Amino acid sequence: MAPLTAMDFAAILDDIEHAMAARTDRGRVADYIPELARIDPAQFAIAVSLADGRSFASGNADTPFSIQSVSKVFTLALALGKLGDRLWTRVGREPSGLAFNSILQLEHEKGRPRNPFINSGAIVTTDAILEGATPAETLGAILRFIRTAADDDDIHINEAVARSETETGHGNFALAHYMRAHGNLHHAPELTLGTYFHQCAIDMTARQLARAGRFLINAPDMPRMVSPDRVRRINALMMTCGHYDGSGDFAFRVGLPGKSGVGGGILVIAPGRAAIAVWSPGLNAQGNSLLGTEAVERLARATGWSVFG
Amino acid sequence: MAPLTAMDFAAILDDIEHAMAARTDRGRVADYIPELARIDPAQFAIAVSLADGRSFASGNADTPFSIQSVSKVFTLALALGKLGDRLWTRVGREPSGLAFNSILQLEHEKGRPRNPFINSGAIVTTDAILEGATPAETLGAILRFIRTAADDDDIHINEAVARSETETGHGNFALAHYMRAHGNLHHAPELTLGTYFHQCAIDMTARQLARAGRFLINAPDMPRMVSPDRVRRINALMMTCGHYDGSGDFAFRVGLPGKSGVGGGILVIAPGRAAIAVWSPGLNAQGNSLLGTEAVERLARATGWSVFG
Amino acid sequence: MAPLTAMDFAAILDDIEHAMAARTDRGRVADYIPELARIDPAQFAIAVSLADGRSFASGNADTPFSIQSVSKVFTLALALGKLGDRLWTRVGREPSGLAFNSILQLEHEKGRPRNPFINSGAIVTTDAILEGATPAETLGAILRFIRTAADDDDIHINEAVARSETETGHGNFALAHYMRAHGNLHHAPELTLGTYFHQCAIDMTARQLARAGRFLINAPDMPRMVSPDRVRRINALMMTCGHYDGSGDFAFRVGLPGKSGVGGGILVIAPGRAAIAVWSPGLNAQGNSLLGTEAVERLARATGWSVFG
Amino acid sequence: MAPLTAMDFAAILDDIEHAMAARTDRGRVADYIPELARIDPAQFAIAVSLADGRSFASGNADTPFSIQSVSKVFTLALALGKLGDRLWTRVGREPSGLAFNSILQLEHEKGRPRNPFINSGAIVTTDAILEGATPAETLGAILRFIRTAADDDDIHINEAVARSETETGHGNFALAHYMRAHGNLHHAPELTLGTYFHQCAIDMTARQLARAGRFLINAPDMPRMVSPDRVRRINALMMTCGHYDGSGDFAFRVGLPGKSGVGGGILVIAPGRAAIAVWSPGLNAQGNSLLGTEAVERLARATGWSVFG
Repeated sequence: MAPLTAMDFAAILDDIEHAMAARTDRGRVADYIPELARIDPAQFAIAVSLADGRSFASGNADTPFSIQSVSKVFTLALALGKLGDRLWTRVGREPSGLAFNSILQLEHEKGRPRNPFINSGAIVTTDAILEGATPAETLGAILRFIRTAADDDDIHINEAVARSETETGHGNFALAHYMRAHGNLHHAPELTLGTYFHQCAIDMTARQLARAGRFLINAPDMPRMVSPDRVRRINALMMTCGHYDGSGDFAFRVGLPGKSGVGGGILVIAPGRAAIAVWSPGLNAQGNSLLGTEAVERLARATGWSVFG
Repeated sequence: MAPLTAMDFAAILDDIEHAMAARTDRGRVADYIPELARIDPAQFAIAVSLADGRSFASGNADTPFSIQSVSKVFTLALALGKLGDRLWTRVGREPSGLAFNSILQLEHEKGRPRNPFINSGAIVTTDAILEGATPAETLGAILRFIRTAADDDDIHINEAVARSETETGHGNFALAHYMRAHGNLHHAPELTLGTYFHQCAIDMTARQLARAGRFLINAPDMPRMVSPDRVRRINALMMTCGHYDGSGDFAFRVGLPGKSGVGGGILVIAPGRAAIAVWSPGLNAQGNSLLGTEAVERLARATGWSVFG
Repeated sequence: MAPLTAMDFAAILDDIEHAMAARTDRGRVADYIPELARIDPAQFAIAVSLADGRSFASGNADTPFSIQSVSKVFTLALALGKLGDRLWTRVGREPSGLAFNSILQLEHEKGRPRNPFINSGAIVTTDAILEGATPAETLGAILRFIRTAADDDDIHINEAVARSETETGHGNFALAHYMRAHGNLHHAPELTLGTYFHQCAIDMTARQLARAGRFLINAPDMPRMVSPDRVRRINALMMTCGHYDGSGDFAFRVGLPGKSGVGGGILVIAPGRAAIAVWSPGLNAQGNSLLGTEAVERLARATGWSVFG
Repeated sequence: MAPLTAMDFAAILDDIEHAMAARTDRGRVADYIPELARIDPAQFAIAVSLADGRSFASGNADTPFSIQSVSKVFTLALALGKLGDRLWTRVGREPSGLAFNSILQLEHEKGRPRNPFINSGAIVTTDAILEGATPAETLGAILRFIRTAADDDDIHINEAVARSETETGHGNFALAHYMRAHGNLHHAPELTLGTYFHQCAIDMTARQLARAGRFLINAPDMPRMVSPDRVRRINALMMTCGHYDGSGDFAFRVGLPGKSGVGGGILVIAPGRAAIAVWSPGLNAQGNSLLGTEAVERLARATGWSVFG
């Protein structure tokens, strides 16, 4: 396949945007976080940052949205930088086959979450970063990491969303207390979850998110936030676990590693080629962006970027 | 990275073979199939078929072994050819997070297996191929597919192994009857399992298996047994589900799609580049070849073939 | 409370029969056994055998019905007579909290059923009686036990029902093979299940069943088929496990030990006082007779027979 | 059997006490509540309050111990008095087949506990009593109920135990938050659990506990705290659910309804005859008093009090 030109990309992204605009079944906006429930489901954005430095976008690519669980990719990178492989004594790296907020697996496996991308695993990951630091310092470090990755200081925490999650996050409190009961949470649940809810409440635009994802492309001119070997491993985890109990289907349809959030955003990596951000607030049954998934499926097909051949 | 020469490959494979020969912890040979329990655990083989037609091997690469669940890749390809996407009404494409022989998930999900690579899902896949054909015809079609893929007619079913599995396969009979009770098995359990046990009892050498895997490389000069799009999907399933509840770890360590069997073989695909077969009879806790996994991890590192960047 | 006269009993049973005849919601006749699916749901019977030798009945008390799982009480008594406490190495005595045909618990507990009254546990119990005997001899012993208990030789196996279950009993075959895979079935599944299906296919009238239950009353003039101590234990198991995942509710409402069958029959024991049989073919969500449960609840209230004070 | 004389009872209780004193395997004192972990496991008490007003005791029958989950019987009686059958919309009445602190069942059944005697169910029951009252008022009502039942005002909450549980009760916080997430907890988890931990921290002697249990005997001269019908139902729940996943075994061995606590106490009811309290701090694998169970098994055998004939 001949290299894609700027015109090619513009055409591909426009096609996708138009196709998505025409869709009437847009999934269901997350309603368990009141602050997110009011988002207009008609919005859509796609942004691509190429390994050669070019970037393209279409739709509401400059509208900030709540990245929610997409933040788990950045905190995993931070935690691995801080603890290295010791992190894996506290969290596994297997798909759970269960919903993002399931507590079942914790009971069978004595409080050790299956992977860092389900809620329990991400809470433990945040707890690990908190070691020897205050929540404020930790949130500072997370924001700094993301801003550096995106090369953009205009990325902030949405306090209203953070507050909304704190007030309604009983499911996450259950997970945290459960892991604390098994000795796998080293701080008070309020402390770790306070940090976790704020990290999830970071607002970014699709354009910013695609830029922030460039460190996972593993290409010569891209930001080098973690070692190439670690990049591969983070991408592997996104492939097998990045969409909860919809991970297999995402890999099957899209063929690229990605991490979704209930705000409707997905960060997708085409290793060696590009970082992609899509956003559409309506979710499918597994809690992943319905149109976002379809959009990257179309992009992967148009570009031939699937890692699977 | 400069292209690897024949001398490079020979050196890499020899290094791997020597490292593996020195290992004293070789895992545990599967003992629930009596015929497999007698295999000498000291054996090891690795074989690589490149997209450019070259091939390399090291160790006991011409010793036949029982491919067991590696056969599921070929029957999945056959079933998709026969039924197309109708297959997915009967089996999912998500990792189960459970052991290869687990029946739990079937009860929660009314007899529909999570994916075609766990035992229940592979039994349904075989049942689907049996539609309108006798077991003998079906086994003929499976053998023909594999022989064509490998370009080698000297590939056969080991009747002693098939018999051994039939006599001791109560776990698989439980799965089959359970699915039958839910209407998701269209033939008598004896019939479908008779076919399934024979398909698992195919003997191949590592060299043959690597050659038979070339159709999954998706490269111009490789055998074209299924469409490129379907190849990508089969590879995606191998990545997320190919090693049961060790799939996440295999993706994390190796970064390539693969399918293991309790005979100790693993077929691994480096899309666009190579098909790889490894064999070492000792298994890890998840039922995947202990040294086989380590060997392909070393190969992926030495060649830079990870799909994850 | 003054002792109840014959007129009291006649009035109580007539009241119950009339109340039940007026009910329009009669539950759902078991349809997974074709031979049972054709039973007229309008039928109802209640029969009481008192410790003092008197007996009363109302409704279709002389119509034979398929006792199904009620047979498990008799085979448990037989198995305890044959093996004594060794039986408990193969089956537990705890409520499972799961459906009668669930296989989940077997996977978590390595093929050992929770109690002898769920399907898996009853299959193991039958397997235990088969030790050193043919299926025909075993069925002979079961029939002999029931006929002696009922003091009535006109009790037979319904071959059409037995055949119907054999042909459609894939769920039970799954359980049997699963336990065989764990070494907790000592005979071929076909052999044990053949016996089990025939035992379940015994036809009895409500009057016969109430008489056959007298050995569990533990009163001086009642038939003595097992020791008083064992009677208490069988009654205890009926109380905690006799109605599957509806056992707690039955104890709560009725306050007496009982064992139900999907044919719509229930055998209930009022220790020291009476054996009661009710029959109404329509089942509730847990697979227990809907009107049968209500009828014995009314009887227990009218007589003050609850064991709970 | 002739009625038992005072001398008979004294002899029976002394025999039991001596047999228990000779036992070297005394189970394991609960260590997850630090304040309980220091209790001397050599202690043992048994106390019996008869329906005719007589009472007997042996061993450390005047030493206060932490009643823990035995308190659930009294709060259930209170909650039923306050809400009547509306309570059953929030909690079931089936044995769970799972450990006292399991969270599994809650996930499958959307936050509705199986019964009021497992931790989750008891927390909901306490939450129900809290409706329209402060924690202090609620604890006052609970204490008042127990003191009235025991006819003894010298019954108090052990604040050190309550504090100890509050600090280490992460498992219970997990349950409470999980039910709150499903809308089945009407107060803040801190509030409900604060009340719950204090209720569990009530200290009583065996003699006091046996007296407090008299209202469940259902006999003419006994305290009438709830209606006879409700007494029967509470007893039924104690029979099927009073010992967690050891309930079936307790019914099988003892044949009487009972409720255990991790402090090593058990309240047992012989309907129409007696209320019994036993105490021995060492627990079996299911968290029930090891020697306490054996002691009431011996008592039931010596007195013939089994409800099962």
